[in-house]
Amino acid sequence: MADLPLPPGSTIGILGGGQLGRMLSQAASRLGFDVVILDPEENSPAGRVSRGQIVAAYDDPTALNVFGRVCDVVTFEFENVPAASVERLAEAGALVAPGPTALAVAQDRVDEKTFLNAVGATTVKFAAVDSVDDIMAELDQVGLPCLLKTRRDGYDGKGQAWIRDYTNVPEAWAAIGGRPAILEAKAAFTRELSIIAARGRDGAVAVYPLGENKHAGGVLRTTNAPAQIDAKTEKRAKAIAASILDGLAYVGVIGIELFDLGNGTLLVNEIAPRVHNTGHWTQDGCVCDQFEQHIRAVAGWPLGPTKAHAQVEMTNLLGDEVEQWSKLAAKPDQRLHLYGKAEARPGRKMAHVNRVRPL
Amino acid sequence: MADLPLPPGSTIGILGGGQLGRMLSQAASRLGFDVVILDPEENSPAGRVSRGQIVAAYDDPTALNVFGRVCDVVTFEFENVPAASVERLAEAGALVAPGPTALAVAQDRVDEKTFLNAVGATTVKFAAVDSVDDIMAELDQVGLPCLLKTRRDGYDGKGQAWIRDYTNVPEAWAAIGGRPAILEAKAAFTRELSIIAARGRDGAVAVYPLGENKHAGGVLRTTNAPAQIDAKTEKRAKAIAASILDGLAYVGVIGIELFDLGNGTLLVNEIAPRVHNTGHWTQDGCVCDQFEQHIRAVAGWPLGPTKAHAQVEMTNLLGDEVEQWSKLAAKPDQRLHLYGKAEARPGRKMAHVNRVRPL
Repeated sequence: MADLPLPPGSTIGILGGGQLGRMLSQAASRLGFDVVILDPEENSPAGRVSRGQIVAAYDDPTALNVFGRVCDVVTFEFENVPAASVERLAEAGALVAPGPTALAVAQDRVDEKTFLNAVGATTVKFAAVDSVDDIMAELDQVGLPCLLKTRRDGYDGKGQAWIRDYTNVPEAWAAIGGRPAILEAKAAFTRELSIIAARGRDGAVAVYPLGENKHAGGVLRTTNAPAQIDAKTEKRAKAIAASILDGLAYVGVIGIELFDLGNGTLLVNEIAPRVHNTGHWTQDGCVCDQFEQHIRAVAGWPLGPTKAHAQVEMTNLLGDEVEQWSKLAAKPDQRLHLYGKAEARPGRKMAHVNRVRPL
Repeated sequence: MADLPLPPGSTIGILGGGQLGRMLSQAASRLGFDVVILDPEENSPAGRVSRGQIVAAYDDPTALNVFGRVCDVVTFEFENVPAASVERLAEAGALVAPGPTALAVAQDRVDEKTFLNAVGATTVKFAAVDSVDDIMAELDQVGLPCLLKTRRDGYDGKGQAWIRDYTNVPEAWAAIGGRPAILEAKAAFTRELSIIAARGRDGAVAVYPLGENKHAGGVLRTTNAPAQIDAKTEKRAKAIAASILDGLAYVGVIGIELFDLGNGTLLVNEIAPRVHNTGHWTQDGCVCDQFEQHIRAVAGWPLGPTKAHAQVEMTNLLGDEVEQWSKLAAKPDQRLHLYGKAEARPGRKMAHVNRVRPL
């Protein structure tokens, strides 16, 4: 088992070779670490900027065994990491962070909301539903309209369907593939906020200023940070983040999406136990961005500062929007971050741009 | 030959796999480029964060041929690139930047000072000397004490010897190995400054605020930037940078070391046709650091902004000073940059730390 804090020259493993893995790898190398990626796609965006990549499935036992022995610490860029993979990595001698509890909670929407309410982080009303009959039985309690989502595996608006009245329940159930699900009340929110926060191995918690997010088609379009927010609500948001992190005995960066009901009430929409798209603004708004922060936490280093020194509007470039790169490159206030993905499929996250203004 | 501006997904080659190559590679990957390193040392610091490394000597014809064909643009992290290597890369189809003129001038101290004076960038008095007799003949004109340096291949204070009076000429000549040399007058400077500047393929010039440098034992210890400087002197420094860049039809970032005589006079000490240790402060003081700036220039992108948003003191960590990493990591105003070098040999540049304060 590795000594902590992990000295420069140690190897950090990242499960997942997409853009989040890439930016984590870049942050780790700035701190003198070697990085190895595990990803089934050859020449992944993260693999191309790392010391090496193991090309294998995330549940390949041999690959996990090698990966766990090569790496001192293993972390991940997505939350749907199989629990068995985490166990195998730990057996091979790697510290894994964030840990299995955070993953389990984040992988199941019912467990997630149950956990959140237990630590005082209020959510919308919800109910676990496993059939059309279950949904019918819960509709009164949850209220109409409401959102039906698979308990597991959904992201960016996939695996979910709105229920507007009783008649379209069977249709919604079919739309999500008739799988174990959660029924969620509609939140009457005025805006969507998010918190990027971190907890170190010593239990220290650091919270970045909040971001205000705009989604379209279930996908994040922009984050504006620091968000305009009154001191009292911000304090409450930071307390929510600390409760969640402490409740999970968390190590690393977490992304917490909030509904702001506009009357001082914040509801937690969901948590992501990893660096988060709504935290990309920190790359150009803070001296220690979310990627370095995550590496610091998992490596047992002290957490870095989270103060903003600029106002940043982050915009995702999806699909062929990435072709704007040459126009954007000419604007002095726009900081481009390109992910090195070859194919600009429609809706694919290809890059983001941070528009930076003085605070 | 590559189309310019070079689109993301193109491959940038870097000759040299040390810390400068590493930080160039990181900047290139943020812009979506793939990077290949050529360096004789396996697993070089830059190779470990790049898509690939060709392990070969810098003058290996086969390696250069492959390198030139794989890369759209080739640049370098050191100035002593053999002219024949540059020719071979160009023949293989790669754009090379900065070009052969800048390299030739920077590789020979007599040519360098001759060029500088020709473009109005004043230097100390100097003379080319090839023997003890030559030195004796030039001493009156150059004045005592003066510095004897090899014309080629010296760096960080190596290959040079002071001449304090006539009697120690033979000793100084022996100390530098009796090679073609330059005799330089001593500059009565009050401080050492440096300029980091860039020129794009379109001829645009961008100059960062000046840095004030402190050396010890011929090696840079600290840079403080932006340096305290009156507007008139700063304007003159920027004009010097533009003359040098235009005179070389330069493409990329250049480092220019200056002697400030304290009476408004600036003399150019030397130029380095590459990113420069005295420009590391830009990583935490500017939104577009010298590494991204260099990649932008060589890739034919528009130059980025050079304004400082923070006051930065950069300190090199040499040899076992790198062991301070855990103490420094705990200080919120200190930004660590570690190079991933395994062996902390005495005097070896292992890392630097930027101390960041509001302007």
